[in-house]
Amino acid sequence: MVRELTVALGERSYPIYIGEGLLQEAASYFDKHGVSKKSPLMIVTDSHIGPLYLEALENVLRASGFQVVSAVVPAGEGSKSLAVFEQLVTKALEGGLDRKSTIVALGGGVIGDLAGYVAASYMRGVRFVQIPTTILAHDSSVGGKVAVNHPLAKNIIGAFHQPAFVLYDLNTLQSLPPRDVRSGLSEAIKHGLIWDEAFVAWCDDNMEKLLALDPDALGYALFKGCGVKAAVVSVDETENGLRAILNLGHTIGHALEAVAGYGELTHGEAISIGMIGSAIVGVKLGAPQEVYKVTRRVLGKSGLPVRLPEHFDTDAVMRAMMHDKKFTEGSIVYVVPTAIGKVEVRSDVPASLVRETVELLKQEADWQ
Amino acid sequence: MVRELTVALGERSYPIYIGEGLLQEAASYFDKHGVSKKSPLMIVTDSHIGPLYLEALENVLRASGFQVVSAVVPAGEGSKSLAVFEQLVTKALEGGLDRKSTIVALGGGVIGDLAGYVAASYMRGVRFVQIPTTILAHDSSVGGKVAVNHPLAKNIIGAFHQPAFVLYDLNTLQSLPPRDVRSGLSEAIKHGLIWDEAFVAWCDDNMEKLLALDPDALGYALFKGCGVKAAVVSVDETENGLRAILNLGHTIGHALEAVAGYGELTHGEAISIGMIGSAIVGVKLGAPQEVYKVTRRVLGKSGLPVRLPEHFDTDAVMRAMMHDKKFTEGSIVYVVPTAIGKVEVRSDVPASLVRETVELLKQEADWQ
Repeated sequence: MVRELTVALGERSYPIYIGEGLLQEAASYFDKHGVSKKSPLMIVTDSHIGPLYLEALENVLRASGFQVVSAVVPAGEGSKSLAVFEQLVTKALEGGLDRKSTIVALGGGVIGDLAGYVAASYMRGVRFVQIPTTILAHDSSVGGKVAVNHPLAKNIIGAFHQPAFVLYDLNTLQSLPPRDVRSGLSEAIKHGLIWDEAFVAWCDDNMEKLLALDPDALGYALFKGCGVKAAVVSVDETENGLRAILNLGHTIGHALEAVAGYGELTHGEAISIGMIGSAIVGVKLGAPQEVYKVTRRVLGKSGLPVRLPEHFDTDAVMRAMMHDKKFTEGSIVYVVPTAIGKVEVRSDVPASLVRETVELLKQEADWQ
Repeated sequence: MVRELTVALGERSYPIYIGEGLLQEAASYFDKHGVSKKSPLMIVTDSHIGPLYLEALENVLRASGFQVVSAVVPAGEGSKSLAVFEQLVTKALEGGLDRKSTIVALGGGVIGDLAGYVAASYMRGVRFVQIPTTILAHDSSVGGKVAVNHPLAKNIIGAFHQPAFVLYDLNTLQSLPPRDVRSGLSEAIKHGLIWDEAFVAWCDDNMEKLLALDPDALGYALFKGCGVKAAVVSVDETENGLRAILNLGHTIGHALEAVAGYGELTHGEAISIGMIGSAIVGVKLGAPQEVYKVTRRVLGKSGLPVRLPEHFDTDAVMRAMMHDKKFTEGSIVYVVPTAIGKVEVRSDVPASLVRETVELLKQEADWQ
């Protein structure tokens, strides 16, 4: 079965298709959405995903008459740089891409962000199609946030550029390493925690199936995760208000990523610890104990880390938080859960409470 | 007097203020438009304009409580590069600019394009204010097209990012070299030729005043030039249709710029020759002879070149035209005048006619 949902953004609305084997059917989706056959399209992928799926995708597209240029960048966050961005623009120019061309991201979040920023900028914006190959990318495939990194800060150079459509082939998820599976589930669980209590309960009940990559369970989780994000983004496309709730767990999470050595924590692992921290802050500010217990239980079942390794220096974590771009005009924006499936954005959370929480996150025993 | 016009783009609408001494009154305009005093703003200027006006602008803004960071880049097209773009992002990060910050372009078209692309990209888009200091910049200050160059093509990396407002201080134009004055008038005359017969007649009658930098005449010409562009852009913000008429003279003009050695032709000079070429094409396709005569007379009065220097190789010019991004899906988009103040966009102009026109442009005697 193919699940379909629409990200409702007026004239920039677009569908997300989720199902098994969609890569093989890519040409019909490209046709349906009017991707040009007269202008070349460019597939951007990385050195991990390229060997697995690039040739197959090129073949099905070429067999239907599409002109295909491909670019393979090194796998990893290092490719989200202005230097690689410029190389892709060069490739697009050399490949003859024009204003009617489409850029296709085949890969995870790094490829989506990088290729998306190329699509946003090339000739001041061309069409963009996402073919995510990780669970985590369900998050970045909704909302059009694209960016590259600057040596001083992540995602600081970017744009809002919505794709024409998203094609999620569940088969491409079968080869994901377990750590990437868990990291992807982290954002899916986050979507439940901010918006959808029933989906959190479903995750609680179906975590084993998810970890075993059961296609139907995965398809459902991606559908729900994308659905929550789509609902939020529809209200607030350019992150001026409601969209801030998507940062649950990210204030501490980003700081941990900044402080951790390369590879120590994935993004999903960092925000897992961050979400536990947010639950602690929530309870301390009056939310029911349940908020902490359920958050702790679901994340724990998934095998994601729920404690902060002791060697993390609290001062360093606090300093990293102060440099994060979520700080606007000197005040801190913090997403605080008030119940499972419900959060509020507060700007009055004392730094002392956050510091105390970071300390509590390091304790072996469960908090409280 | 301060002339004011609005670029009507729905929620992205913005005003252009044109008058003498507006730089000294900048703070009140910044206040009026809600530029943040809590978040630093960054002024981007170049090594020619900086020494003339930067300190004065910094002083009036700081005196009113704005936090000001400044960045001075080398004057010239060379600064419209990804490398300088990255330096400006670094400067913005080091200066503590956040999502509520504003980027201010103080300078000509290069600075507007460069600073505008920084504003479009920094933290996925911050506010942007333009303070143009050339006549030519009246063109780029309307419509939100911002970009940097790639070694293989001009303006290929960019965005559509509308300013919050534009502040045109006529006093800053008094020090313009005569060649820059003429080049700026070239785009103003173009706006008349595509849209406003009466303004072309006014230019014909008032060219001496314009060349003498009479403030009232200049203010009127900028008001009319911006007005035409605003009318066109309001209908077609992202260059999908009508906006193509703004490319009158640019098909040949861009090719001449690409072929010419550095500094041989300014943009305004190149499109002046290009507009003569367009008039020739127009008459050959059935427009009244008047179209050529008036175009020739007004551009001639301004001192702009109306003939192509003989050493330009016709083959090279034709090849350069084929690489221009105005070619979509293999067909050529050419803006052809049908009367003074009226043009049509045609995609059926034979390359042979354009080649013949390039040859005619080299002839010493007036054509026909």
